[in-house]
Amino acid sequence: MSFLDRVRTCAQFTPSAYRPFRVDGIDVGLVAHEFAELLAKNAGVFVVGEEAVTLSPSAPADPAGRTDAVARALRPLADAGALPGWRDEPYEVAAYPGAPVLFAMERAAIPKFGIIAAGIHVNGIVRDADGGVRMWIGRRALNKANSPGKLDQLVGGGKPAGASVHDTLLKESAEEADLPEAVAGRAVPVGAIAYRTERSEGLRRDVLYVFDLELPEDAVPRNTDGEISEFHLWPLQRVIETVRETDEFKFNCALVVIDFLIRHGYIGPDEPDYLELVHGLRSLALPGGAPI
Amino acid sequence: MSFLDRVRTCAQFTPSAYRPFRVDGIDVGLVAHEFAELLAKNAGVFVVGEEAVTLSPSAPADPAGRTDAVARALRPLADAGALPGWRDEPYEVAAYPGAPVLFAMERAAIPKFGIIAAGIHVNGIVRDADGGVRMWIGRRALNKANSPGKLDQLVGGGKPAGASVHDTLLKESAEEADLPEAVAGRAVPVGAIAYRTERSEGLRRDVLYVFDLELPEDAVPRNTDGEISEFHLWPLQRVIETVRETDEFKFNCALVVIDFLIRHGYIGPDEPDYLELVHGLRSLALPGGAPI
Repeated sequence: MSFLDRVRTCAQFTPSAYRPFRVDGIDVGLVAHEFAELLAKNAGVFVVGEEAVTLSPSAPADPAGRTDAVARALRPLADAGALPGWRDEPYEVAAYPGAPVLFAMERAAIPKFGIIAAGIHVNGIVRDADGGVRMWIGRRALNKANSPGKLDQLVGGGKPAGASVHDTLLKESAEEADLPEAVAGRAVPVGAIAYRTERSEGLRRDVLYVFDLELPEDAVPRNTDGEISEFHLWPLQRVIETVRETDEFKFNCALVVIDFLIRHGYIGPDEPDYLELVHGLRSLALPGGAPI
Repeated sequence: MSFLDRVRTCAQFTPSAYRPFRVDGIDVGLVAHEFAELLAKNAGVFVVGEEAVTLSPSAPADPAGRTDAVARALRPLADAGALPGWRDEPYEVAAYPGAPVLFAMERAAIPKFGIIAAGIHVNGIVRDADGGVRMWIGRRALNKANSPGKLDQLVGGGKPAGASVHDTLLKESAEEADLPEAVAGRAVPVGAIAYRTERSEGLRRDVLYVFDLELPEDAVPRNTDGEISEFHLWPLQRVIETVRETDEFKFNCALVVIDFLIRHGYIGPDEPDYLELVHGLRSLALPGGAPI
């Protein structure tokens, strides 16, 4: 087992299994053929073509109208159990984060349509007087829809439609770890990781904005929304070994740890997999609209 | 002017202007058609085909033999002035850093053959008691072959064949800034940036291993190899404005600064160009041999 195995776990993708989800001529998602067939039976506002899934020409053209029409079309699929984890939380539909928002779609449907989602993850760190580092690790509640019982960062969560990254940081820090704004606001943005990988919930194409937050010894996180069952303050060496040798961490949380280890010199450039790790943590090619 | 302009400056590439340089069936480089025509006149061990530049089947198959044969073939080009800056410094020829080394080639020829080169850059930082940060900036000597008079990091340099990244860090820190091993060895490896861009010297496809080095106030760098004419300890805000508003920094050194600003939270995730910057700093797709 190696760090590279964790990155490969987040790079499971078979291009031929998907057709584009295209809105206004822009490829905003990737729909598995299997889901496209299911969608065709209850298409509503969707047009399920051989080449691509699109929106009907008769659908509303404005974002709010599209959001409503899409929600109505998805409801029967949700009622039939094809969109587990529906939580009435709209996500932005765009070619990539920062591109023009075309409409909003329920979070549970995002991976079924292979739309890029954004989120935030916070590494919670305690620096010891002797130079050692400990890291706060959460264990996900057993009733979570995704990755129950797996290990997680101090704080992590998706960015809902309309919220900024900073808004999401403050909201999730309060809900997941009971951190007041004065504490969460000290989190330092340190970059973003990205991956595209097939999971049971669909195709995850995620951009995670990463933060490092140094906490004093006596700041003990407390989960308030039931999503984390317990927090542990682990010596970094234990975190390193757990990520490298086991699959106890949630698939994407392992990548956030590896990114931390690279940024802080715990994985060095003469190690054989270094460039594959650096590259693999940002393997999501920004689609068409991105200028680079 | 913006940070993104600096990244775009390092992404000038017209695929149709090049043909592959292929060794043992592996694409290790990209040769501009214009240079290929020049090479064809004095081909030596090279076979200049329409589709690709390759090595003659009669060339030695072992790395040392190939290194010698290629050096002999390049010498007439150097004598004719087509390889300016020849310095008898061999670089590794491989599909990407870490891939099997096929042979070594004089540094001055590396961009003419579009081979990926590796280097190290060190951000030299002084933390003030009030939380402010200053950064050591070097000005390149006016007699440098590349980017004379431009601003640079505290330390930067290419990785010669056979040297590890750590070796290169220590050697360049001694030569460029007179830093003893005990000081340079405290530099923290923090990742790697990559770019592919056309320059007057050829096609630069570089991977730069980046280090952050915190220095005490009284550690004043001193150049020993004549490559840096002066060092300045600038408040970070001046560095930020100079990178964003001017082209005073050497093209790739600007990227190293932008990477520093992202990793330390001076450029935040709600800024419009954030993902393009994060992505653009690592825009070198690892070719075929890379597992990801």
